[in-house]
Amino acid sequence: MSSRDSSWVPGAEGSGFDIDHLPYGVVVIDGAPTPVVRIGAHVLDLRRCHDEGLLDGAGWARAADLGGLLAAGPSVWAATRDRLGDLLAADATPRPPADALRPLADLPAPLLPFTVGDYVDFYSSLHHATNVGRIFRPDGEPLLPNWRHLPVGYHGRAGTVVVSGTPVTRPSGQRRPQDDGPVPVGPSTALDIELEVGFVVGGPPTALGDPVPTSAAAERIFGVVLLNDWSARDIQAWEYVPLGPFLGKSFATSISPWVTPLAALDAARVPPPPQDPPVAAYLQAPGEWALDLSLEVALSPADTDAEEVVSRVSFADMYWTMPQQLAHATSNGATIRPGDLFGSGTVSGPERGTEGSLLELTVGGQEPLHVAGVQRTYLEDGDTVVLRGHCAGRGGGRLVLGEVSGQVLPAR
Amino acid sequence: MSSRDSSWVPGAEGSGFDIDHLPYGVVVIDGAPTPVVRIGAHVLDLRRCHDEGLLDGAGWARAADLGGLLAAGPSVWAATRDRLGDLLAADATPRPPADALRPLADLPAPLLPFTVGDYVDFYSSLHHATNVGRIFRPDGEPLLPNWRHLPVGYHGRAGTVVVSGTPVTRPSGQRRPQDDGPVPVGPSTALDIELEVGFVVGGPPTALGDPVPTSAAAERIFGVVLLNDWSARDIQAWEYVPLGPFLGKSFATSISPWVTPLAALDAARVPPPPQDPPVAAYLQAPGEWALDLSLEVALSPADTDAEEVVSRVSFADMYWTMPQQLAHATSNGATIRPGDLFGSGTVSGPERGTEGSLLELTVGGQEPLHVAGVQRTYLEDGDTVVLRGHCAGRGGGRLVLGEVSGQVLPAR
Repeated sequence: MSSRDSSWVPGAEGSGFDIDHLPYGVVVIDGAPTPVVRIGAHVLDLRRCHDEGLLDGAGWARAADLGGLLAAGPSVWAATRDRLGDLLAADATPRPPADALRPLADLPAPLLPFTVGDYVDFYSSLHHATNVGRIFRPDGEPLLPNWRHLPVGYHGRAGTVVVSGTPVTRPSGQRRPQDDGPVPVGPSTALDIELEVGFVVGGPPTALGDPVPTSAAAERIFGVVLLNDWSARDIQAWEYVPLGPFLGKSFATSISPWVTPLAALDAARVPPPPQDPPVAAYLQAPGEWALDLSLEVALSPADTDAEEVVSRVSFADMYWTMPQQLAHATSNGATIRPGDLFGSGTVSGPERGTEGSLLELTVGGQEPLHVAGVQRTYLEDGDTVVLRGHCAGRGGGRLVLGEVSGQVLPAR
Repeated sequence: MSSRDSSWVPGAEGSGFDIDHLPYGVVVIDGAPTPVVRIGAHVLDLRRCHDEGLLDGAGWARAADLGGLLAAGPSVWAATRDRLGDLLAADATPRPPADALRPLADLPAPLLPFTVGDYVDFYSSLHHATNVGRIFRPDGEPLLPNWRHLPVGYHGRAGTVVVSGTPVTRPSGQRRPQDDGPVPVGPSTALDIELEVGFVVGGPPTALGDPVPTSAAAERIFGVVLLNDWSARDIQAWEYVPLGPFLGKSFATSISPWVTPLAALDAARVPPPPQDPPVAAYLQAPGEWALDLSLEVALSPADTDAEEVVSRVSFADMYWTMPQQLAHATSNGATIRPGDLFGSGTVSGPERGTEGSLLELTVGGQEPLHVAGVQRTYLEDGDTVVLRGHCAGRGGGRLVLGEVSGQVLPAR
């Protein structure tokens, strides 16, 4: 293998965080939040590399998060990735100073890697939208008339996007009353998750009135994260007409600490499924823009050490792709800023066991799951959910996406 | 009158921006965005005052916007307002240096006064919700079942909140097809405005899981702005099921350049209308939390110099108040950050001519307005809309809110 196919960092090979991956994140090093790149079970301190003169022009590495790197745009992203490949390759000369490489085990948990500008969440899985439509509108067409014409989406709360590992307090709120009874107020009794993949954009802010065409997606999409769109179904069901989800979603959205660069996903890119009817001109996005990511949802019930995978699904057959989502979100002239985050919407497949939410996995709470010896419809206090994903890396290896975990805390 | 009832600044008295008002904003002075306070047709350069030692501990005045002041919290807000009253009072000793006072006419247009964290838009006018319900659901109950139980709201796009004066490009998008015909794509043919009042919050960020009770509103609400929630009704009508408005709103939201402190509005505070049925405990907010603001929408059609007021309405009878909106938005444990912006929703009254949108003023486009010699249903390219507001100031004077104007540019 060539030098760029392996790294001098021990344990990187086969870890899913090998030299063909190099996801970015932020960890606290010597008391300061620091941009890093992950390699195996280590991180490379990019600020230290910059200060040593190993990363030309990487002033962004002095920032407290990845915001500067996101803003720097695609030529900097490409040059940085190339340079990091050189520094970490088996035959690197020079190698970074020894103390620039830190074992993750010696560091506090990673921080939220970037400040989220706006957070948009889509609804782009045909199977998810169909499943949900069947549960909520059993007598009607499962898909609403607009669904195949545009990637339906809405704005979520950017300020409550949190990093993996952040505990999630069970939200309280109003629920739909029974008949003419009083409106119940209290802790959600239908706390759910949504398995999603998010992408974060960068480059200079766009100007008001200027759409981002699908052809510009490659220069705007920095990378992807796994995303758990925690959802309180009972709060959502009562509040959501006519303006959409609000408090049923805004209490927390968890993302990976590691942002996998789009450039690391070449081997995972596949053609998206055909779209019927054909989409409008501004949504046409030729090319292999689907991502063949293998995703799973694991649930560890409260008071157990056991964990069970409750859903496995591929991201490859999402109906709407990232370039289409980005072009649609800006088709009205809305601007984007570095750090804007776009969620895919729940990823579900057509078969039982491939659904990305408990709502679907339990058919609206009617068919409980049996998980590690206990029964679950929605989440109980103390339950931990972990989202995981992997895909093919360059050269046939496996690339592991940063996982997203979160434990449910009791309502306050 | 006492010295604090009048200012040494010429022209302040009776301008609506007298010493009892003192709204904050940001203007470019000597090339740098600078926090200022408005007095009459002048601004006082707060950075200069700080550098001269006239504002103790006002490090926030060195920032490029009001973000630092918002974060500083209510004791700093009160002390700063008090100190500015001293510096601008008729008998001030010392007065700020002469070059700290700048005529607005000599300065470029004010900038967006703060970076918006998250932007939430409510739907809190009973008359607006009723009017819209009648237009869209003529055969049903105009109000949906949740409306009197909680302040319905959703997240808008923070990154496209712009300052008054920013031109608004007509958005393009998809519209609902006729019968089984193709989906039309093109410039919106139903471009509308929404007359709203927004409030911005501050103080330290809250912790995830901690609601902000109604009793904390006074220490969290920094001030208010007028807000135009530009809306493309045709885009909105096709996209909005089931996740709410998205591109029909996200192309632009305009706010005043001047943030009127809550503390300046004491004389405008009145009891809100009664709520029936009684609201949940977490939404109870005793006190005079309605604001008796007189609002108007003025329209200047393209190719005319004429302007006509098309709507006049009071803000006093909004059904849901600011403390209720803030408590509701955080009742699920969602955090707030300094700079988070909350819109009231369209302000409409019960009579013809008091509606805060063209949708309502023209009854869904069926009854065109006659404005300055021309006919209008929705906005035409070149039209300018101006939102204005005023209320009682301390001592019986009139306090004028910063106006919000915007001209429609043709679609690109």
